Amino acid sequence: MLVLGIDPGSRFLGYGLVAWRGNRATYVTSGVVRADGKAPLPQRLGTIFAELQRVVNVFKPEAIAVEGVFTHKNARSALILGHARGVALLLADQAGLAVHEYAPARVKKSVGAGGNDSKGAVARMVERLLQLDAPLEREDAYDALAVALCHVHQLRVPRVGPAVGDDFLSRLKPAMVRAGT
Amino acid sequence: MLVLGIDPGSRFLGYGLVAWRGNRATYVTSGVVRADGKAPLPQRLGTIFAELQRVVNVFKPEAIAVEGVFTHKNARSALILGHARGVALLLADQAGLAVHEYAPARVKKSVGAGGNDSKGAVARMVERLLQLDAPLEREDAYDALAVALCHVHQLRVPRVGPAVGDDFLSRLKPAMVRAGT
Repeated sequence: MLVLGIDPGSRFLGYGLVAWRGNRATYVTSGVVRADGKAPLPQRLGTIFAELQRVVNVFKPEAIAVEGVFTHKNARSALILGHARGVALLLADQAGLAVHEYAPARVKKSVGAGGNDSKGAVARMVERLLQLDAPLEREDAYDALAVALCHVHQLRVPRVGPAVGDDFLSRLKPAMVRAGT
Repeated sequence: MLVLGIDPGSRFLGYGLVAWRGNRATYVTSGVVRADGKAPLPQRLGTIFAELQRVVNVFKPEAIAVEGVFTHKNARSALILGHARGVALLLADQAGLAVHEYAPARVKKSVGAGGNDSKGAVARMVERLLQLDAPLEREDAYDALAVALCHVHQLRVPRVGPAVGDDFLSRLKPAMVRAGT
């Protein structure tokens, strides 16, 4: 199972591929699509779409995970973000891939970071969980990997009801979890 | 010169084609793309893209005009609107069409409606300007035609500086305008 996580933005769009095999999440690839900030918005969206399409065609993920945006401070930036998100979701539809959305707080929790932890904390947790040798170029890529991990975590256990204390790290230590139940 | 006006929305997206020939704007076609409100957002965006693509392929417009969104009350609705807009702008980029954005107030003014006039007033002005025989099915189509007219109006006179009282209706009566200058 290959999951493509996307962290949309109209100038920097992060993406990260995580494989889920044998109860283990492994890093496949990640990157940042850079759209020329001076280019007109349609052209930037064209770049984003083409680059994401390339990633999907090469790696053939089976699902796309993206952070849901439930609140946003600024209507103007929400609108611009919506453009990049729309292009990513359109690609998912055209490629016949299911899109899974996760609340930002849930993404953080699934990599073992708290709600108030910084972006940097998420990056460090992702580095550790995926055993990355070298730091990635931008936070956008870490955020994309985090949402992919969040989805992978979701696949791990068939859910029949609301889970309590259901975070990724605790599930990485099944013996400990079992001992507590 | 064929101009495609677009009024984006994630459930109802209005489009309208206006031809500009011999100093005269004529109605070509218009419609509303209806995306199933119960369908997931990626699927709705897929419908919007496919329908707009069909219109572009059939009619081969030379430019796309869309209302710029400069202010928005609600960040959540701005985000959703951004998705539909992103898909429309992506299509423009892929089709190699220039996108022209106009402020809502300017669109209203270009069809001879005032800033405080209702949506219904814009619809009536569009009906009159384009000599429509029958009412269109939804306001979204009128809004799309209004922004196409706004662009057509822009083509009419090469602009060298800020125009004063430069509205579409006054230009439809060139003799009167000339009499006043």
